[in-house]
Amino acid sequence: MSLVVVGSVAYDAVETPHGRVDRMLGGACTYIALAAGYFTEVGIVAVVGDDFAAEDQALLTDHGIDLAGLERVPGKTFFWAGVYSPDMNERTTLRTDLNVFADFQPKLPESYRARPYLLLGNIQPALQRSVRAQMNGLRVAGGDTMNYWIRDYRPELLATIREWDFLLINDSEARMLSGEHNLRRAAQAILDMGPRTLVIKRGEYGAILFRRDSFFIVPGYLLEQVFDPTGAGDCFAGGFIGYLAARGLSLEDPGMDRRELSRAVIYGSVLGSFCCERFGVDRFRTLTRAEIDARFQEFKDFTDF
Amino acid sequence: MSLVVVGSVAYDAVETPHGRVDRMLGGACTYIALAAGYFTEVGIVAVVGDDFAAEDQALLTDHGIDLAGLERVPGKTFFWAGVYSPDMNERTTLRTDLNVFADFQPKLPESYRARPYLLLGNIQPALQRSVRAQMNGLRVAGGDTMNYWIRDYRPELLATIREWDFLLINDSEARMLSGEHNLRRAAQAILDMGPRTLVIKRGEYGAILFRRDSFFIVPGYLLEQVFDPTGAGDCFAGGFIGYLAARGLSLEDPGMDRRELSRAVIYGSVLGSFCCERFGVDRFRTLTRAEIDARFQEFKDFTDF
Repeated sequence: MSLVVVGSVAYDAVETPHGRVDRMLGGACTYIALAAGYFTEVGIVAVVGDDFAAEDQALLTDHGIDLAGLERVPGKTFFWAGVYSPDMNERTTLRTDLNVFADFQPKLPESYRARPYLLLGNIQPALQRSVRAQMNGLRVAGGDTMNYWIRDYRPELLATIREWDFLLINDSEARMLSGEHNLRRAAQAILDMGPRTLVIKRGEYGAILFRRDSFFIVPGYLLEQVFDPTGAGDCFAGGFIGYLAARGLSLEDPGMDRRELSRAVIYGSVLGSFCCERFGVDRFRTLTRAEIDARFQEFKDFTDF
Repeated sequence: MSLVVVGSVAYDAVETPHGRVDRMLGGACTYIALAAGYFTEVGIVAVVGDDFAAEDQALLTDHGIDLAGLERVPGKTFFWAGVYSPDMNERTTLRTDLNVFADFQPKLPESYRARPYLLLGNIQPALQRSVRAQMNGLRVAGGDTMNYWIRDYRPELLATIREWDFLLINDSEARMLSGEHNLRRAAQAILDMGPRTLVIKRGEYGAILFRRDSFFIVPGYLLEQVFDPTGAGDCFAGGFIGYLAARGLSLEDPGMDRRELSRAVIYGSVLGSFCCERFGVDRFRTLTRAEIDARFQEFKDFTDF
């Protein structure tokens, strides 16, 4: 079933211990859409400037992504530059030029409004809320956020996630949002805020899916080399929602097989792990669905007892 | 099948965010033996001073632990004092009084020498090696070490672990021993040093078992509250070797079901998690085998997909 993805499309400059790229396609919406596109039909809502390259647009359309909601305006595309620490567990932002993204007001094309799945990438919470309000017939809506919105836009953020079926954040964000250090208690506090499903991403340590009455934990995939972790969390989100959409799952169906949700977490983990294997979106230029399914099977093999 | 455990028996002073105990039974050998004792017959080799309390000895004998190798000498028992950081991910040693442990020369009682399983807790590598040399008919021998021996006793340590079937260390020790930051590559380097099975403990993030041709990853158990992590790694070791011994497994049997090793890792994780629920060894005063098996089943439930 069809999915709408909202968020940033950007150009990134990234330096990791393995090299440096001065300008490459990035942005949460880009990563989410590319990952989800392996599972289901995806339409994006985003804004780019008149510097947005034809070859970058072609990468998206080659992956079957519907660009009806990609607005082009005069000016430059959002630009971000960052550098990773030697162990890649920390990154420092060197530069953020919002450019055309500063005035982003997501407008849904008519053709998107009745689509059943919605993934709201990390943008200003009130904008996320405005997108959700433009849709009718949603089966599953959820998204991501970040420390900045949690700290400085808390009331807007709480009003926004109250309407979501799932929230997908990392462990430090979960601690900040809940005020609880212990993840199990942090999760219970967040589930009280509205979303009945919470996925906490733990970077190299994997992810946890929490529901009121159960949880599922997956360890991270052991890559031999992490080339560039930029976008891995967004690819996780794309794999997760992509699988839900492909299977037509509703998170509130009482008869749902709990393991379907767990499999969505595994597919999220698989896509996040592939993302780290090359700079930026490069891995997606060659990645096949067969490779994705083979890695899903690897997860089965190395967690089975 | 019967297991011999060698290491420290100590008194500890521990402060965590949940409280403080000025003097309680501790030491690697104590934790390993208590954990392994739920699975198999255990005999210990250790030394204590004349201050070793009757009630602490009783705790060990009540758990069926054979004290034939527990030497008592004039002087005080090994004493360690430490304090944990607020998030309990770091601890600072405040005091280490080796006392009678300074002259520890492990001597195996005749009754231990033909036992098939040996777990060498973290002590001076040459002493670990001398113990192994006193045994005949070993089926599985392995143990633990720490940063101090890796850094300052490297040749002795390498000669020692070359004779082991398995090595059980934490992630920072694995990185230090191998010189590789990436755990997958660190593991391959360590497997070249002798032990054909390597277990890397990752604290709250679980553990990984590496073999030349496969690996198994388990996430950590999500405790609602970590009361005191002291001894958790040793309890992991005890659960791991205890299960191997109970099942009579050899790590070199080509026909072995790989999942038996994975189950040993799960039982290690289960025992480590219980250890954190109370101060020191307190949880073992009430812990039952039924509780252990119930938590093993929980691991099944929250990792199944």
